[in-house]
Amino acid sequence: MANVATATARAGQQPGEPWISGIIPPVCTPFTPELEVDVPSLERLIGFLLDEGVSGVFMLGSSGETAYLTDGQRDVVVEVAVKTVAGQVPVLAGLIDMTTSRMIEHAGRALGLGADALVATAPFYALVTEPPEVDRHFRALKAACGAPLLAYDIPVAVHTKLSVSEVATLATDGVLDGLKDSSGDMAAMREVILATRSLPEFAIFTGSEVIVDCAMQVGANGSVPGLGNVDPRGFVELYQSCRAGEWDRARTHQERLMTLFGITRCAEPGKGRSASGLGGFKTALMLRGIIATNAMALPQAALGDAETAAVRQVLVETGLLS
Amino acid sequence: MANVATATARAGQQPGEPWISGIIPPVCTPFTPELEVDVPSLERLIGFLLDEGVSGVFMLGSSGETAYLTDGQRDVVVEVAVKTVAGQVPVLAGLIDMTTSRMIEHAGRALGLGADALVATAPFYALVTEPPEVDRHFRALKAACGAPLLAYDIPVAVHTKLSVSEVATLATDGVLDGLKDSSGDMAAMREVILATRSLPEFAIFTGSEVIVDCAMQVGANGSVPGLGNVDPRGFVELYQSCRAGEWDRARTHQERLMTLFGITRCAEPGKGRSASGLGGFKTALMLRGIIATNAMALPQAALGDAETAAVRQVLVETGLLS
Amino acid sequence: MANVATATARAGQQPGEPWISGIIPPVCTPFTPELEVDVPSLERLIGFLLDEGVSGVFMLGSSGETAYLTDGQRDVVVEVAVKTVAGQVPVLAGLIDMTTSRMIEHAGRALGLGADALVATAPFYALVTEPPEVDRHFRALKAACGAPLLAYDIPVAVHTKLSVSEVATLATDGVLDGLKDSSGDMAAMREVILATRSLPEFAIFTGSEVIVDCAMQVGANGSVPGLGNVDPRGFVELYQSCRAGEWDRARTHQERLMTLFGITRCAEPGKGRSASGLGGFKTALMLRGIIATNAMALPQAALGDAETAAVRQVLVETGLLS
Amino acid sequence: MANVATATARAGQQPGEPWISGIIPPVCTPFTPELEVDVPSLERLIGFLLDEGVSGVFMLGSSGETAYLTDGQRDVVVEVAVKTVAGQVPVLAGLIDMTTSRMIEHAGRALGLGADALVATAPFYALVTEPPEVDRHFRALKAACGAPLLAYDIPVAVHTKLSVSEVATLATDGVLDGLKDSSGDMAAMREVILATRSLPEFAIFTGSEVIVDCAMQVGANGSVPGLGNVDPRGFVELYQSCRAGEWDRARTHQERLMTLFGITRCAEPGKGRSASGLGGFKTALMLRGIIATNAMALPQAALGDAETAAVRQVLVETGLLS
Repeated sequence: MANVATATARAGQQPGEPWISGIIPPVCTPFTPELEVDVPSLERLIGFLLDEGVSGVFMLGSSGETAYLTDGQRDVVVEVAVKTVAGQVPVLAGLIDMTTSRMIEHAGRALGLGADALVATAPFYALVTEPPEVDRHFRALKAACGAPLLAYDIPVAVHTKLSVSEVATLATDGVLDGLKDSSGDMAAMREVILATRSLPEFAIFTGSEVIVDCAMQVGANGSVPGLGNVDPRGFVELYQSCRAGEWDRARTHQERLMTLFGITRCAEPGKGRSASGLGGFKTALMLRGIIATNAMALPQAALGDAETAAVRQVLVETGLLS
Repeated sequence: MANVATATARAGQQPGEPWISGIIPPVCTPFTPELEVDVPSLERLIGFLLDEGVSGVFMLGSSGETAYLTDGQRDVVVEVAVKTVAGQVPVLAGLIDMTTSRMIEHAGRALGLGADALVATAPFYALVTEPPEVDRHFRALKAACGAPLLAYDIPVAVHTKLSVSEVATLATDGVLDGLKDSSGDMAAMREVILATRSLPEFAIFTGSEVIVDCAMQVGANGSVPGLGNVDPRGFVELYQSCRAGEWDRARTHQERLMTLFGITRCAEPGKGRSASGLGGFKTALMLRGIIATNAMALPQAALGDAETAAVRQVLVETGLLS
Repeated sequence: MANVATATARAGQQPGEPWISGIIPPVCTPFTPELEVDVPSLERLIGFLLDEGVSGVFMLGSSGETAYLTDGQRDVVVEVAVKTVAGQVPVLAGLIDMTTSRMIEHAGRALGLGADALVATAPFYALVTEPPEVDRHFRALKAACGAPLLAYDIPVAVHTKLSVSEVATLATDGVLDGLKDSSGDMAAMREVILATRSLPEFAIFTGSEVIVDCAMQVGANGSVPGLGNVDPRGFVELYQSCRAGEWDRARTHQERLMTLFGITRCAEPGKGRSASGLGGFKTALMLRGIIATNAMALPQAALGDAETAAVRQVLVETGLLS
Repeated sequence: MANVATATARAGQQPGEPWISGIIPPVCTPFTPELEVDVPSLERLIGFLLDEGVSGVFMLGSSGETAYLTDGQRDVVVEVAVKTVAGQVPVLAGLIDMTTSRMIEHAGRALGLGADALVATAPFYALVTEPPEVDRHFRALKAACGAPLLAYDIPVAVHTKLSVSEVATLATDGVLDGLKDSSGDMAAMREVILATRSLPEFAIFTGSEVIVDCAMQVGANGSVPGLGNVDPRGFVELYQSCRAGEWDRARTHQERLMTLFGITRCAEPGKGRSASGLGGFKTALMLRGIIATNAMALPQAALGDAETAAVRQVLVETGLLS
């Protein structure tokens, strides 16, 4: 599968381009009121993303509430994605779990179901150090899985920041094929970009929705924006403006998307960052008619009526609802 | 099963005593050289702990490298424990995973295999808040599982500290039946003890090996000491001294165990806290002839020859080897 | 002066005793409504502490709002203390500031005004490492000041935890004469106690008000309790019970003081830990008639009427007000 | 003085421009071998910066080792700056200290010596919260000082991140005249830029040397780059490229400066971030012949011979030495 995936990824590739680039939303996982995966909603969501021009879909990322999904639910998500995408773009699958052996199991399941590439964090909960333990972790993952592998740097969840030298070494050694940087540390991401410039295949994506133009300006290959679930076309246009070097136009797109990002701040006190942020995405998708409910996995609560009204207001302001 | 377990736990119970007390080691998971669970070694280890007088065994805790075990390996560990213990003491099972629904699955498997009680952390990786999200988490766990449930407060791994008021509320409401406190925050643990004094059934254990006498002095019901794998009799004698109010004798036991705790500091630079600490336990158990290898789960490395010699030296100093 | 001070400290000293021990409150700094040091109130407070039997006074600690005092205000505090104490017990002076050279200046002023010993944290704000930079810091301080020097380990404020090995090395080398441990990490403090057992002069104090009996049980020489401003006699009795090995009586004292510690939790939301905790102390001292106002340094706000009523209620419950 | 300063700042100001913009290096403080301020070296350094076209000088920032300077040394630094600058550009003075009243004292001294504007962090060491305590802090500073006031957001040192809403509120209320953002959080800085867009006078500077072009692209008014001590002309050219909208040229400048930033990574293990980073700046200035020594304040150590050779190598690579 990985071969097919890589081939797919490289179809639109130009010389000196990485194996994958563009806008690759970390797809939300819609739920039924009973908190099972809502398959028709997920199909609609993926179809919507494809129609709007995304370059890939990242299933089982943080925005997919993956930390809250059982293994069975994870399988459903990957199955639906592979079937709905039907080879049009690569399907990336996150391996969110604590350590190497557990991630290897997730990798086997995802690849077996047809995923094209894998995205893995450093270990967490476990008290490991970098290097050599984080280094050994990624090497063991790559050796076990074979497929294209992106490191997922998300210190807010994992409580480890991948170092520039570690990522560069693993890229040089062919262990990592890319980086999804959700650290918010633009300076460090830029240093990775410089340190891997001689590796044009290595793909670097920012996970920070509000600085995609900056990331592109310094050499990133695209973005994995959670907000891209809600307005994929806005992000695709932003990406295209950056690729064309139209930085003023890019900034205008980006600033509109910053306003839209206000949907992640509509929750009332007592909701955590996950319930507030992902809850904002899901509520917006519900209001746009793409998914059926804004239900959130336990122990989160869904946004209520007043919070939903606040989300609606932001959608109206940004032209996504009338 | 929970009923049997609770019955077992309460067999030796005196009026005003909690449902469980004493020394309950978080049992290490021995590995074969191929990094599968070494069943004969695990059986020997559990038998050794029982012979030395422990009050229960806590399988699938942090010391069991649970974060590194696949679900299949976890099942093996619980099966072996239930069979080997054969009802002599309660078998507690940890639910180490990111969120509520995943922990509920682990709970179902562990209870189905015969575990008597469950031990659960707050969610991690997921960005939840306390209260109300952590509160809702424990209530959902209890509702789904029914069995005796201990909160596992281990901020170094989970990056959340359970608050005194949260634990006290959940204890009062019958959601939590106990607390394993591995926060190292004796002041907060003591406040929990005072806040739950009217609930004599509520059981409080310290996970800090070197302050067990302090914890007992302020009212804890026992300890879940990782180092108890290596010298369970030392901890049982320490516990009994505390119960008898022989604090000077308790201190002598405790200080000897502090010296023994030096086995967790024998690793060379580059090993994380887990590889160094748990590696010290496993190496000592190997040197004592109880388990076959000191192999560690990926991406950790086992202690090498020089490190093993340093562990041996500590065992000699503390009278565990000659 | 240091000679006199040391002599004073050693007056009541028994063989094998450290140079100082017992209850040494970190004295609050009362303010006038205009936020200047209220000298008559400070004199009354120190007199009250002496009357109740404290073994020393620690001026310019965190409880003295020292971080908020100008250098001129700090001088007033030390002057008043030296004059009021008049050699009855040692006067310790904190050197709270960012780095070595600034602390050396504070040390010179405090010793010039008659302080007997100094208490210094690791550098903060500055991005230093340990060792060798923290090590070099304490050595430079000692070389410049000559006077007895205690390390002040307070990671919540300084964001560095002094390591066991660092403290033990500096104690062995005669750089440090003692430790005020406000880290809350009883296990680490106990390791320091064991590591310095061959240095009977080295004095170890806990700054955690609610675990003084534990600290004494494991070998500490006393406490520097902020709450000791409010009920010094309670802490002296607790200390004496511990020295007599009457641990049950000690626990009774300690638990009553835990209830009294509730005065630090009377503040309404929006007040920081300093305004809430130190504000509780000052309000209690005002209600007991010892200081004139509960004014707090900028940018803190004093406790208001409802908060003051809550503090009063705790004082009544614990027998300090009727 | 503040009036003159503001007038100076506004001399080159265009309509809709903030009161200050461009490259404003946080000036290093050269030392004699005896660790006193090396006045001739400081004069040469400031003269060099002016010759290369900086828009202002920021004395007593983190790069000036201000946390390590006594008050007397701080006075010397400001005096030398005011005299050397002689009104050509504004002189900004940092107020680095723990709390409001101490910062007000520093402000009075700096303004009395002729500084034009002030730069202040949130309180540190003190356990305050935001809002309302951090809010009250800045309001009290502004009320006491009157001069133009920039907030200095540097969580790595202060351990508080100023929130977007807090900065925006203080800007709207005329308390803050600008922001020096050394948080590295480009997303948050950009939100501040959007939130203050209706306040064209409000000036926003990034303190992150390697993302100045990004910061300018999203609307910042300039940079306060520590590395600007070493190559001020490089930063001025970078700034001018950004102002001209020549983003490709800007990126070329920026990437060369990233290579130069390697001088902050030449230190051997054991040196903290301050000794390594600021030590790299000072060593480069020494090698360029601008300051006499690379001495560092206690408890830091200066870079040694091998480290100095590594710095020299970077200077050669980037064309600053031949």
